[in-house]
Amino acid sequence: MPKKAVLIVIDGLGDLPCPELKGMTPLEAAKKPVIDSLSAEGETGFMNTIAPGVIPGSDTAHLALFGYDPYLFYFGRGIYEALGAGFELEESDVAFRANLATLKDSIIKDRRAGRDDKYMKELYSSVDGMKIEDIKVISKHTSEHRGVVIFRGNGLSNLITDADPHKTGEKPLESKPKDNSLQADKAARLLNEFTRRGIELLSNSEWNQKRVKEGFLPGNVILLRGAGAYRKVDSLEKRFGIRMSCVAGGALYKGVARFVGMKVLNVLGATGDKNTSLKAKLDAAVKAKEESDIVFLHIKAPDSFSHDGKPVEKKQFIEKIDKEVMKEIKENFDVVALTGDHSTPCSMKEHSGDAVPVLVWGKNCRKDKGIFSESNPSPTLFIRGLDVLNILLSKIEKLDKFGE
Amino acid sequence: MPKKAVLIVIDGLGDLPCPELKGMTPLEAAKKPVIDSLSAEGETGFMNTIAPGVIPGSDTAHLALFGYDPYLFYFGRGIYEALGAGFELEESDVAFRANLATLKDSIIKDRRAGRDDKYMKELYSSVDGMKIEDIKVISKHTSEHRGVVIFRGNGLSNLITDADPHKTGEKPLESKPKDNSLQADKAARLLNEFTRRGIELLSNSEWNQKRVKEGFLPGNVILLRGAGAYRKVDSLEKRFGIRMSCVAGGALYKGVARFVGMKVLNVLGATGDKNTSLKAKLDAAVKAKEESDIVFLHIKAPDSFSHDGKPVEKKQFIEKIDKEVMKEIKENFDVVALTGDHSTPCSMKEHSGDAVPVLVWGKNCRKDKGIFSESNPSPTLFIRGLDVLNILLSKIEKLDKFGE
Repeated sequence: MPKKAVLIVIDGLGDLPCPELKGMTPLEAAKKPVIDSLSAEGETGFMNTIAPGVIPGSDTAHLALFGYDPYLFYFGRGIYEALGAGFELEESDVAFRANLATLKDSIIKDRRAGRDDKYMKELYSSVDGMKIEDIKVISKHTSEHRGVVIFRGNGLSNLITDADPHKTGEKPLESKPKDNSLQADKAARLLNEFTRRGIELLSNSEWNQKRVKEGFLPGNVILLRGAGAYRKVDSLEKRFGIRMSCVAGGALYKGVARFVGMKVLNVLGATGDKNTSLKAKLDAAVKAKEESDIVFLHIKAPDSFSHDGKPVEKKQFIEKIDKEVMKEIKENFDVVALTGDHSTPCSMKEHSGDAVPVLVWGKNCRKDKGIFSESNPSPTLFIRGLDVLNILLSKIEKLDKFGE
Repeated sequence: MPKKAVLIVIDGLGDLPCPELKGMTPLEAAKKPVIDSLSAEGETGFMNTIAPGVIPGSDTAHLALFGYDPYLFYFGRGIYEALGAGFELEESDVAFRANLATLKDSIIKDRRAGRDDKYMKELYSSVDGMKIEDIKVISKHTSEHRGVVIFRGNGLSNLITDADPHKTGEKPLESKPKDNSLQADKAARLLNEFTRRGIELLSNSEWNQKRVKEGFLPGNVILLRGAGAYRKVDSLEKRFGIRMSCVAGGALYKGVARFVGMKVLNVLGATGDKNTSLKAKLDAAVKAKEESDIVFLHIKAPDSFSHDGKPVEKKQFIEKIDKEVMKEIKENFDVVALTGDHSTPCSMKEHSGDAVPVLVWGKNCRKDKGIFSESNPSPTLFIRGLDVLNILLSKIEKLDKFGE
């Protein structure tokens, strides 16, 4: 029987000591008997997702975890978001994350236009198909105030600054090229033209008149950020001869998974937030095993609690994962890898460059005396994100020897 | 007095818990008072010879241990075997490992033609000097049924598949190029022609008639494997300004040592198996110290026990090494590094991607509270194979500062 592995990523798992938890980290404070049994029977240690001290983004972290060196394969956030939202990208597309925002007297009043989705589909559609120079604009609504905007055509680079100032009380920013290339120059010029024309079109939109009439804020500017330039890369199957499936809620994680050629499952109830159905994700992961060598299972909520500075809730969610997911995972997979994509200390409310605890359990595993924690009396694993795939492949006996 | 180091590699040392040893690894179970004293007084930890999870071959592992990145300096097994067997290689030679095997009705009946050396020298000689296209074949017997075959000439690559199917009951394989180069195409074509002509010549050989008459299996096909393409590389002396000597039994280890410019000692009684004379190797290593900065001492038997799935014998051999080698090593060298080239878990009977315990003792060494084992309560070394040489050079004070 071919052996099957699962890679469980608890987003933002690593933390620092929290006063709210008597100086413990959420992971240390959490009651997690199943995870404890895995670490007692398996290998434990630390992972620097990119390199020690380097602060990983969610996108670069997952590229590394999937065996794709982000220094070679990271082409800007926008394309992973677009892929995750289900778009078909073409070579040389430049894709952005988009917010419909509320502008008043040229100043951004609300970056999310109230965070609802009323007529948002129609508003995004109203700029869809726009032509700027020789470039075609594709604009689609995704959720609430959010969307994806793609510049389709040639001669564009993603090395440009955002139009979105990431805060209210300011004007939309003038995008600038980050290098001296004609491609970046052109992309920045197009983005600025897009912002300008978008304001013009949306300010006069009947859909905004309806929104205002119905008591909603107008969505009269599309703020773009995170330019990404699409290039097709060799798939996991081509590079490593393996099949992987992705069970995740958030679009970004699905997008990175799709980028590397994973099968991305649509899981009803997987929302990428604290209300996600862990049961639905667990069931999907176990089912996906049949057609995969490795199943990737992503759980987002702990990171969100960290960003909100809520260590108690983070601890409780880790306990919930242990209770509702880990037992059946242990029963259903030959090899289990459990880690985070990066640390997000509750005290910092941001990603940090600290190592993340890592645990590998199951077939062909050693038994060290370590624990799965930010502090470990007997670790044996000291790895980088890029090593995870090789470790899993060697444990499930799908890796060829290098040399003879 | 210049300081002297020894690098002792116990082949296939790392392991997994063994039921036969009450869940301990052979290294954990072994009584090894001298090694324990070294670890109590020195530095301990883990080494991933190539990278975490990556499964090292014996050839790539030793290149890394000698400071030669196998991703840059690995040119295929055959050349290291040929060098280890004492051949002088020329730039652009392609060398193979060879087996004289027994073919019956076009099917391989015995891959080793009975594993004896009766008239084997003559049989290998009978194809020596063969011309195929513009290439000259060199064919020499080494031991038992084994030999080395070299294609001498230009325009050849080693990126071809083996003719040896590595099992009985099959026909010799058609070699295929692994890339689209003309060089690989030519090498595969020549190898196939060599196999064909070899069968023709050997089937009609008087030496095989004698073998059969005397009750031996005929050696009527030469099966080639592990193509390697020779390129001369800068020596240890040129790259690091040091002299190293090699004490080993197996041809491969001697070959990698010769490839990097070590002085390879001929040690009577060093057989590369469980009957090797540890005493002879110890004496040779101590003697080699005079003309070396670092002595490389290779001990093969534990790996062979792992490949045979014999953890008790592996443990006993580790005890034998401790008893017969380590005390005098400690007395005779300023710095001792002890490790394996890779893990070979007895339960898997194959190399694995697991880290190997590593120990560095002596002059300029720290004293951690770790132990030399697959599980370690207080490790301080987390290294790769490529790091070993730098560590040893810095301890014996032969390494220049990088920068000022």
